[in-house]
Amino acid sequence: MLPVQIHLTLPPWLADVADASARYHTDEERVGLAIALSRHNVANGSGGPFGAAVFDGEGRLIAAGVNRVVPQACSVAHAEMMAYMAAQQRLQRFRLNEGGGRYILATSAQPCCQCYGATVWAGIDELLIGARAEDVESLTEFDEGPLPADWIGELQRRGIAVRRDVLREEARAVLASYGETGPSY
Amino acid sequence: MLPVQIHLTLPPWLADVADASARYHTDEERVGLAIALSRHNVANGSGGPFGAAVFDGEGRLIAAGVNRVVPQACSVAHAEMMAYMAAQQRLQRFRLNEGGGRYILATSAQPCCQCYGATVWAGIDELLIGARAEDVESLTEFDEGPLPADWIGELQRRGIAVRRDVLREEARAVLASYGETGPSY
Repeated sequence: MLPVQIHLTLPPWLADVADASARYHTDEERVGLAIALSRHNVANGSGGPFGAAVFDGEGRLIAAGVNRVVPQACSVAHAEMMAYMAAQQRLQRFRLNEGGGRYILATSAQPCCQCYGATVWAGIDELLIGARAEDVESLTEFDEGPLPADWIGELQRRGIAVRRDVLREEARAVLASYGETGPSY
Repeated sequence: MLPVQIHLTLPPWLADVADASARYHTDEERVGLAIALSRHNVANGSGGPFGAAVFDGEGRLIAAGVNRVVPQACSVAHAEMMAYMAAQQRLQRFRLNEGGGRYILATSAQPCCQCYGATVWAGIDELLIGARAEDVESLTEFDEGPLPADWIGELQRRGIAVRRDVLREEARAVLASYGETGPSY
């Protein structure tokens, strides 16, 4: 029998860390949440050290995601992919900003080649990044994969603003801790 | 309430087109299945004109996928992504070839930037492609997105062989038909 259903879950502790009723007004609050998700994901043994969240232009949290690759046996289940899929499901739109609103993805670390490509289609207006790709690759064993040479320019030309190094040191600390102790699952 | 479940489905007609008990020995049989999936997806109004399938080294069909972006309100749900997720779920491995076997993705059209990145992580040994990116972009309104300049070389350096133009004209015909009549959903 060929599989015809894909079912992915986010961990039950998610709502303890991500507050759906709060407003996240600043870039630091938004990336701070993504980093907190990455830290809790490692501490809870529910996936790799990566977190992401989608906000609307007023700072409302639409969806949150964490890396679920190993627990769910799914190479697609990176934090950014989970956040995009969850946000789109909640809003019932395959392009988040098609309705006219403004949407932001905050991620604890620079998107890998897969999440980079997904970002082109997800319908966001702004990408906020904590750690850089070189942080991920120097502090952990994760590979970020091949990107277009001018990856930021390619996003900007499609209307997606990019801001890097938001709480970079805090994001690096989670990666460093993970790199030293290894996964807990 | 933040979403904590992602649920994606493949259409019920899938098993009528993709034969889990057959062997697909040649590259043409493998891409031919991906093209048949793309054609049936349009005819059934169950998504965009793209199909993909994962085979093992003996030509056994592990999983099949079709584009489900619009029906499922999910920009991640491209044919290749659905095929990877379904195959990994079936084998319960986040890298298909980690167990030592050899795995192949056949796709009706060149992977876009998202599916390209996903291909780096999915654990395949060979990528078989029907239509080229320029076929997709000239025959339909779909955009393929930004890729690394040497996208084939980047895959080859990671152990993934790439063969293009397999049944290219047949793949182009589905795209041309879709481009002329538009989506049926």
